[in-house]
Amino acid sequence: MAEATAQARYTELSELYSDRAKMAGPGMVGLDPRSIRKVISFSGGYPDATTLPIQDIIEATRVALERDGEWALQYAFGSGIPELVEQLRIKLARDQGIVADVPNILVTNGASQALGLIFEMFVNPGDVILSEAPFFLGTVHYAHANGAVVRELPLDDDGIVIADLERELNALRAQGTRAKFLYLVPNFQNPTGITYSFERRKQIVALAQEHGLPILEDDAYFDLRFEGDKVPTFYELDGTGLVMYCGTFSKILSAGVRLGWVVAAPDIIAHLSGLKTDYGTGAFASSVAAEFAGSGTLLEHVQELKHLYHQRRDVMLDALAEHMPPGTSWTRPTGGFFVWITLPEGVSAADVTPLAQQRGVGVTEGTYFFSGAGGEDKLRLSYSFNTDDEIRQGVQIVGDVVRELAGTR
Amino acid sequence: MAEATAQARYTELSELYSDRAKMAGPGMVGLDPRSIRKVISFSGGYPDATTLPIQDIIEATRVALERDGEWALQYAFGSGIPELVEQLRIKLARDQGIVADVPNILVTNGASQALGLIFEMFVNPGDVILSEAPFFLGTVHYAHANGAVVRELPLDDDGIVIADLERELNALRAQGTRAKFLYLVPNFQNPTGITYSFERRKQIVALAQEHGLPILEDDAYFDLRFEGDKVPTFYELDGTGLVMYCGTFSKILSAGVRLGWVVAAPDIIAHLSGLKTDYGTGAFASSVAAEFAGSGTLLEHVQELKHLYHQRRDVMLDALAEHMPPGTSWTRPTGGFFVWITLPEGVSAADVTPLAQQRGVGVTEGTYFFSGAGGEDKLRLSYSFNTDDEIRQGVQIVGDVVRELAGTR
Repeated sequence: MAEATAQARYTELSELYSDRAKMAGPGMVGLDPRSIRKVISFSGGYPDATTLPIQDIIEATRVALERDGEWALQYAFGSGIPELVEQLRIKLARDQGIVADVPNILVTNGASQALGLIFEMFVNPGDVILSEAPFFLGTVHYAHANGAVVRELPLDDDGIVIADLERELNALRAQGTRAKFLYLVPNFQNPTGITYSFERRKQIVALAQEHGLPILEDDAYFDLRFEGDKVPTFYELDGTGLVMYCGTFSKILSAGVRLGWVVAAPDIIAHLSGLKTDYGTGAFASSVAAEFAGSGTLLEHVQELKHLYHQRRDVMLDALAEHMPPGTSWTRPTGGFFVWITLPEGVSAADVTPLAQQRGVGVTEGTYFFSGAGGEDKLRLSYSFNTDDEIRQGVQIVGDVVRELAGTR
Repeated sequence: MAEATAQARYTELSELYSDRAKMAGPGMVGLDPRSIRKVISFSGGYPDATTLPIQDIIEATRVALERDGEWALQYAFGSGIPELVEQLRIKLARDQGIVADVPNILVTNGASQALGLIFEMFVNPGDVILSEAPFFLGTVHYAHANGAVVRELPLDDDGIVIADLERELNALRAQGTRAKFLYLVPNFQNPTGITYSFERRKQIVALAQEHGLPILEDDAYFDLRFEGDKVPTFYELDGTGLVMYCGTFSKILSAGVRLGWVVAAPDIIAHLSGLKTDYGTGAFASSVAAEFAGSGTLLEHVQELKHLYHQRRDVMLDALAEHMPPGTSWTRPTGGFFVWITLPEGVSAADVTPLAQQRGVGVTEGTYFFSGAGGEDKLRLSYSFNTDDEIRQGVQIVGDVVRELAGTR
């Protein structure tokens, strides 16, 4: 077939695409996830590669398959394989303080799928959702792909600003409508690194209960606290079925197993399952993860990761203090992966990013973390993926670029 | 929280569900996939458990992780990990006669996810799709969940009846509209077991090209032909970008790895990726499958499976001939998993199913394979999951039930 004919056919077929496909647009098939190895990569939320528990995962695979290979290699529609659901119940009760029964749990292909399903389950095009801002860029995409109208609520050091939340809720009530949910990342927020205080959480839950506002609590970084005390989850603070709690194995076991979960009211779980088109999350990866968790290896591994990321955060904060020019400021996370940089007045993130990339350092522009305008003077830097030396070297390069741009304005 | 309050909250939250969630309804969270072990199960499309290549998969895991654990355990957004995409290109060219470049391929969580994404990508509520009938019950669900209007086209022994397809296409053209696609399972069709003849395929492709009708070719059973010669795929026969070709590792490696794929025009692949919310199919399972395929173990395993399913089909056909009462008829598949039974006049599948279940045999009623009415006098029996003795015993029980019901009418 001639190229021209093929092109004509594709154009013609695109007329048949659904409204959803047009809203979502094309995906990341052209991008190579492995290209992060070509630079010092502060740009992704990639877990560290050097500490991957490769031998432990090989061993967990052997044990899981030899013990129960029939079910590890079979279909697993429904909530998830029973062994993993049980390990999640144990983990959630022990670590998160969340008591969940089987009908409250759905195992998903990473927390990403859980978030995507929740958007699909609640949002008709034009519906309002509330979100902290800046917010996780994956969720920015889901909002866009589902046609959500996002009312962004600014963050201070303790979480979203209550006065802003209250004003939005009252405005919606006055219009006789409701937001579909409030989206937030309570711990070591993506991209800012901030953690919601206990007091702020209680205030938000009280307002949510008053207004019947569901909360989508995306707690991907919960386990990676290396400083300070745990704060109760929104799920625990609410206790009335308003909260959908998402978590993941991506940051503590491996992103490659693609395992996350959502804990919510049974009817919500059942409807999320109804929208999940993959006939159940993979029993193979689930069996390996269940063995990894059940044997105690997961807990040990999380301890190692906390030390590692603590160290890397310190290296990055020290390097920022040493190399960033006056007028630059940044957050100080107590866990997770991310530092959020505010550039000196007049320096644009859109100018920093390509120059840093040319010199071998990947950073993410703040604008990706807003559904509309915002973040033009911000950068997100992740310290999770590179070694201490690479972090020092990379921050020095970013510091040089920012200094040069600040000097030329 | 009191139960009553919780219930009130859930009811209130359900008011917030999207139209899509309401269309799809709740999923299969209450069902236990492992309950099939409690009966002789002719009801599922479950691959055989006794021949699962457990040691080979453990070995493939070890090799894949020791060689390239960093990427096997990392995110893999985009088309799929390069090693698996390459193995698919080799396999498709060698076995299917399909030449596919990287931008033509998307690795998915089983073919189920590929099918679900294609429905989402093309169907707005109220849109017309064409389908063979009876058709795969997963696709019946996707049609329903996306609000598709299904025009069902009856099957004869060679595929959908051309006169019916032509009449539908002309009717749509007369209304100034187009069907979004034609869905079909060309080999060892689910549920009937029939295979589209070469002549019929050519006629369908010619009509599709004339009418600009995309074809969704779900070839889940392609590799499991144990009799007769391969027939060219619709994808190969078309060659103009009209066909979306779906396949799976579920039937030849393991359903638990949740790996399938779609081959289509690059713009379709990109848009499917845009709707895929799980941030890439799991690199862990993908790496294991790539190693399993690349080492040659997959080809050997498929040879074993073909012998196994051939034998089991023969056992089931012999048992049917021995035990089913006069007036019963059935298909004779040359591959795959399924035999389609037509019950004697006056015997209803809805009566057979619970009685067989009470006596320890699971069968699937024909009505599940139609979007509206149909299949009331049909049963689908799968010979893939049980041993020869179980098949003989199970068919005898079903035969007894049918005979008793035929005798009492």
